[in-house]
Amino acid sequence: MSAEFELIDRITRDLSVGDDVMLSVGDDAAVLRFSGDTVVTTDLLIENVHFKRQWSSARAVGRKAVAVNVSDVEAMGARPSSVVVALAFPKDLDQEWVAEFEDGVKEECATAGVSLVGGDLSSASAIAICVTAIGDLEGRRPITRGGAKAGEVVAVKGNLGWSAAGLTVLQRGFGSPKDMVAEHLTPSVPYGQGIVASDAGATAMLDISDGLLADLGHLCERSGVGIDVDTSLLEIPDGVSRVAAATGKNPLGFVIAGGEDHALAATFRNEAVVPKGWRVVGTVNDSGAVTVDGEPWEGSAGWDHFA
Amino acid sequence: MSAEFELIDRITRDLSVGDDVMLSVGDDAAVLRFSGDTVVTTDLLIENVHFKRQWSSARAVGRKAVAVNVSDVEAMGARPSSVVVALAFPKDLDQEWVAEFEDGVKEECATAGVSLVGGDLSSASAIAICVTAIGDLEGRRPITRGGAKAGEVVAVKGNLGWSAAGLTVLQRGFGSPKDMVAEHLTPSVPYGQGIVASDAGATAMLDISDGLLADLGHLCERSGVGIDVDTSLLEIPDGVSRVAAATGKNPLGFVIAGGEDHALAATFRNEAVVPKGWRVVGTVNDSGAVTVDGEPWEGSAGWDHFA
Repeated sequence: MSAEFELIDRITRDLSVGDDVMLSVGDDAAVLRFSGDTVVTTDLLIENVHFKRQWSSARAVGRKAVAVNVSDVEAMGARPSSVVVALAFPKDLDQEWVAEFEDGVKEECATAGVSLVGGDLSSASAIAICVTAIGDLEGRRPITRGGAKAGEVVAVKGNLGWSAAGLTVLQRGFGSPKDMVAEHLTPSVPYGQGIVASDAGATAMLDISDGLLADLGHLCERSGVGIDVDTSLLEIPDGVSRVAAATGKNPLGFVIAGGEDHALAATFRNEAVVPKGWRVVGTVNDSGAVTVDGEPWEGSAGWDHFA
Repeated sequence: MSAEFELIDRITRDLSVGDDVMLSVGDDAAVLRFSGDTVVTTDLLIENVHFKRQWSSARAVGRKAVAVNVSDVEAMGARPSSVVVALAFPKDLDQEWVAEFEDGVKEECATAGVSLVGGDLSSASAIAICVTAIGDLEGRRPITRGGAKAGEVVAVKGNLGWSAAGLTVLQRGFGSPKDMVAEHLTPSVPYGQGIVASDAGATAMLDISDGLLADLGHLCERSGVGIDVDTSLLEIPDGVSRVAAATGKNPLGFVIAGGEDHALAATFRNEAVVPKGWRVVGTVNDSGAVTVDGEPWEGSAGWDHFA
């Protein structure tokens, strides 16, 4: 048996899949049976761009690769079903790294309730991962970025600022606050909350990956609205405060302009319909811009891979 | 506008999509409306592993990335619907390369009748491409590798040996026969033939990517059968003969053990039901192994990324 097929065999030996998986790995393609429209999204994770091996265990990278993709399926208000995972790595990479990466993939799949149904392996000069996540709208309409209207409220579910605070700590060579660092290495996606928001009547929704303000900007652009974030409604987590104090930064900056949060932001007709556990953080207006307490935000606004 | 969003805008400006695309690029995920089960498959193309920039134009790489993936959807007997394309590239790569790559992606999408509905961009130390293709079974059952039975015939649709002959030429620094080289750079997938085979009653089917014998071996393993390839039924294309003569190789080796053909191989109950344009190349038996004219093949059997 060749090295490639041996590795595939090792990865796929003990896979369990959901009821909607008619055919899993081992054929030219997987087959899924959905009751509604199909949702599909893809994301790359590149070594030294999206993760560093000295910071992240292989398991954490595997978990993150699945999490950030499934988060986009959640953001459509769909039920995440499955992922396919493509991995390219140097020939001299420790095989144990690959095995642990795949363990992380499977672990996050279990947490997210999705099935690993396919993938690809290749050699490469550096590690490159591409995950595609598929979801089932189950008869629901998709919640796009385009449905928000002036007069509505904006609410968030998930951890804001934790990932950016964790990254700041790692960049300075430290490993704590541990909860902030852990959140950067593997975001804790609010699984299941996309459907909760949809069923509560969310008018628009998206995954916060570029930072709250930057992503609300995308929502405003598509919806033709403005949003004012009320900072008195935001929570500054203790870990964020500590990182901000240690680095002389504004803690608010982490929360509203961080990045890689993979929380969900959604708009709702009014506060009464916002689901339990979601935090109202602002209101929708017709200004066409994102403001913070009524003013433009002067700090950094988000993440650009080519800046 | 940031460099990343500018590039995305340029790529997505003039996209046309099929009737089954409810929501295309620009949101967290695309939404597709299928009448049957969903088929999904993913493949990596890594620079200097799957293509070399000195051999392939950016346009050819873009076309190949789509073609090799859609081929896997065809091999399930499904209607290819859509692709998502993730591209990682060095920051100093000529932006014209990226634009031409995306032109190639769109060109092959048009040829294959699929919609480009999403993607991702990232920086990286070398070019890495990941395409995921999605198809709709439209109420058909999937044609897996597992349904072949002794007594059936094996047939092929597409070009065998052309790609391997083209690669051999390129490796020696030449550029002709041009049809062989072109086939290596962008395989001409027999689009639409997966459904034709399914409707004709194909019992098993797969995409020939590792070489005819190697892939028939995969089919035999899954179906619990053997296959004998009858070389008198094979066509040795003129270009393959010329490359074989020039390099002192057995022309048959290119045809039955080449690789990256992206032709389709399928089994049918008998010769009478084999669709027009398909070439019968052998018979299914209960030997459990792939043979050539009744004997084991002594040459190389296929491609291994980690060999």
